Amino acid sequence: MSIKITGLGSYIPNLKRKNSDFLQHEFLNADGSKFPHDNATTISKFKAITGIEERRYLEEDLCTSDMATLAAKRAIETSGIDPETLDYIIIAHNYGDVKHGSIQSDAVPSIATRVKHNLKIKNPSCVGYDVLFGCPGWIEAVIQAQAFMQCGMAKKCLVIGAEALSRVVDIHDRDSMIFSDGAGAAVLEITNEPGGILSHESATFAYEEAHHIYFGGSNKGDQQDSTRFIKMNGRKIYEFALKEVPKAMASCLLKSGKSIEDVKKIFIHQANEKMDDAIISRFYKLHKLKAPENVMPMSIQELGNSSVATVPTLLDLVVNGHIENQELNKGDIIILASVGAGMNINAIVYEY
Amino acid sequence: MSIKITGLGSYIPNLKRKNSDFLQHEFLNADGSKFPHDNATTISKFKAITGIEERRYLEEDLCTSDMATLAAKRAIETSGIDPETLDYIIIAHNYGDVKHGSIQSDAVPSIATRVKHNLKIKNPSCVGYDVLFGCPGWIEAVIQAQAFMQCGMAKKCLVIGAEALSRVVDIHDRDSMIFSDGAGAAVLEITNEPGGILSHESATFAYEEAHHIYFGGSNKGDQQDSTRFIKMNGRKIYEFALKEVPKAMASCLLKSGKSIEDVKKIFIHQANEKMDDAIISRFYKLHKLKAPENVMPMSIQELGNSSVATVPTLLDLVVNGHIENQELNKGDIIILASVGAGMNINAIVYEY
Repeated sequence: MSIKITGLGSYIPNLKRKNSDFLQHEFLNADGSKFPHDNATTISKFKAITGIEERRYLEEDLCTSDMATLAAKRAIETSGIDPETLDYIIIAHNYGDVKHGSIQSDAVPSIATRVKHNLKIKNPSCVGYDVLFGCPGWIEAVIQAQAFMQCGMAKKCLVIGAEALSRVVDIHDRDSMIFSDGAGAAVLEITNEPGGILSHESATFAYEEAHHIYFGGSNKGDQQDSTRFIKMNGRKIYEFALKEVPKAMASCLLKSGKSIEDVKKIFIHQANEKMDDAIISRFYKLHKLKAPENVMPMSIQELGNSSVATVPTLLDLVVNGHIENQELNKGDIIILASVGAGMNINAIVYEY
Repeated sequence: MSIKITGLGSYIPNLKRKNSDFLQHEFLNADGSKFPHDNATTISKFKAITGIEERRYLEEDLCTSDMATLAAKRAIETSGIDPETLDYIIIAHNYGDVKHGSIQSDAVPSIATRVKHNLKIKNPSCVGYDVLFGCPGWIEAVIQAQAFMQCGMAKKCLVIGAEALSRVVDIHDRDSMIFSDGAGAAVLEITNEPGGILSHESATFAYEEAHHIYFGGSNKGDQQDSTRFIKMNGRKIYEFALKEVPKAMASCLLKSGKSIEDVKKIFIHQANEKMDDAIISRFYKLHKLKAPENVMPMSIQELGNSSVATVPTLLDLVVNGHIENQELNKGDIIILASVGAGMNINAIVYEY
């Protein structure tokens, strides 16, 4: 018995926001003070660190659950399953549906219910729930689907990651340029084929790290407005991720019984290009190796950081040949890995 | 091997709101029209249907995660476990932390992370995540913990339900009188004792029922204010619950291998006294029996409907002898059941 991804789908919003679109923004430090340089410099520094040139924003009339539905439809289509045979719809997000112009998160009913409703699935035994686990939510939901399949509670699961971070950014925070919108989905099934999920690793660092990513006030402090936005302590996250993610990946690889030489590709959460590069370097250094060229497909340059959506979207793009010089072949050993709010970290070693 | 609850805890907020506290409220119909009678009549009708005389509201300086922490501490204490040995902290809620006076839900970091932080648990292998599944979220989280234990991913799980509905009510909606705040928690462990979880049932009805409970505008329609609140279609929920909950409970009982005569107590989500009475009557009627007296402990009269918190809180109250004429003894077969936003339904048959 193996647990395999039998269908993948993603939804990449149509609205492109280039770095140059931020030239007129009033960026401020967290204390409200101005930067000593102009926006062109801020943006150029931003690009050098994160690798991001543009990101995607959801159309005004859509919400996270709409993107999730579109990604889910494609995953179901490529899997070829009858959606009525799904045992679970698990959706990872962190802010629910936030309507354009609203500051309220809405997840009642759950986003899973909305997707199931949109997919017109009638079977009540197809159970839908939402998981909140920061950016690593989609991988965590895959781990949960695996548990249900291993213990006989499910045979087919639809696992979605969807987020519209454009709805919760502070336009006066330069970090707002990192964030993007999108959705990715996978159908997982119990199959008789070899491979699939070989091992997983999951961790929550809440003692000192709980508030590295948080909900906070605008950098343009206004005593009258208590609206809060997605905020992060970039430096602390960078240091934390570099210290812990390679270890978690190595632990996961060890459990899988595969060697570092077997690893063909690493699909890592698209958080920040420099950080992702450094994580992979350190992961290989733990094995006294240099990271092979092209081992890490990247989409962050054009798609930004869409939280839970990055890993399944990237997987979908590579499988469908949409990332230059990247491909997956049957039998390839790959690692999926993520880090984000919680602070949570997880990884999966998977035989494609 | 059995999966048993080895510790229970709950947090019941101190602030009591009596029905008479609503006498001065301006209650309106959904279309903004006034009721043809005074508030005393509205409240008396409300009391006759729901059974609710008073409810509890969270202190202004606390949030959902604080209540969850307090309930969790008590559950850990009664279980006697070292919290560092927990494999999972799973918390069910639907609105995250909503600060007093705010309309924003905050679940970044997750409520599970906040609770883990508050409990000062360092072990990163203790994974914390949040589940959104409407009012049945706590029972669903128990089912998920069961899956992790059955497939070898966990030995000890802390499962919490916490919600502060007072932070999302529309004061111009008489349904606001239903809602309450609270938290309940359980430690679940793999044990060598007999009993524990015998069977479970879980369902999501999203085709026609998805929006029976939803986020909507105030009954005092104000074009300037787009703030949304918890809203429900009471009549549709009543009909749906009466049709589907007894069937789900009967299916769960059948899977457990126990007979209806074995059932000592039913702990049902405290949604509405008349509805709960009718569900239990119909459940027994399916077995051609009349519901025995005292089979259904109730707390709604004094505690209202605190969503995910009602079932674990009620269990904690009965186990500790705080509900008149109610007790649990070793070996008792009990049913836990819930229904709520999604619309989701679930049940567990458990040997105490």
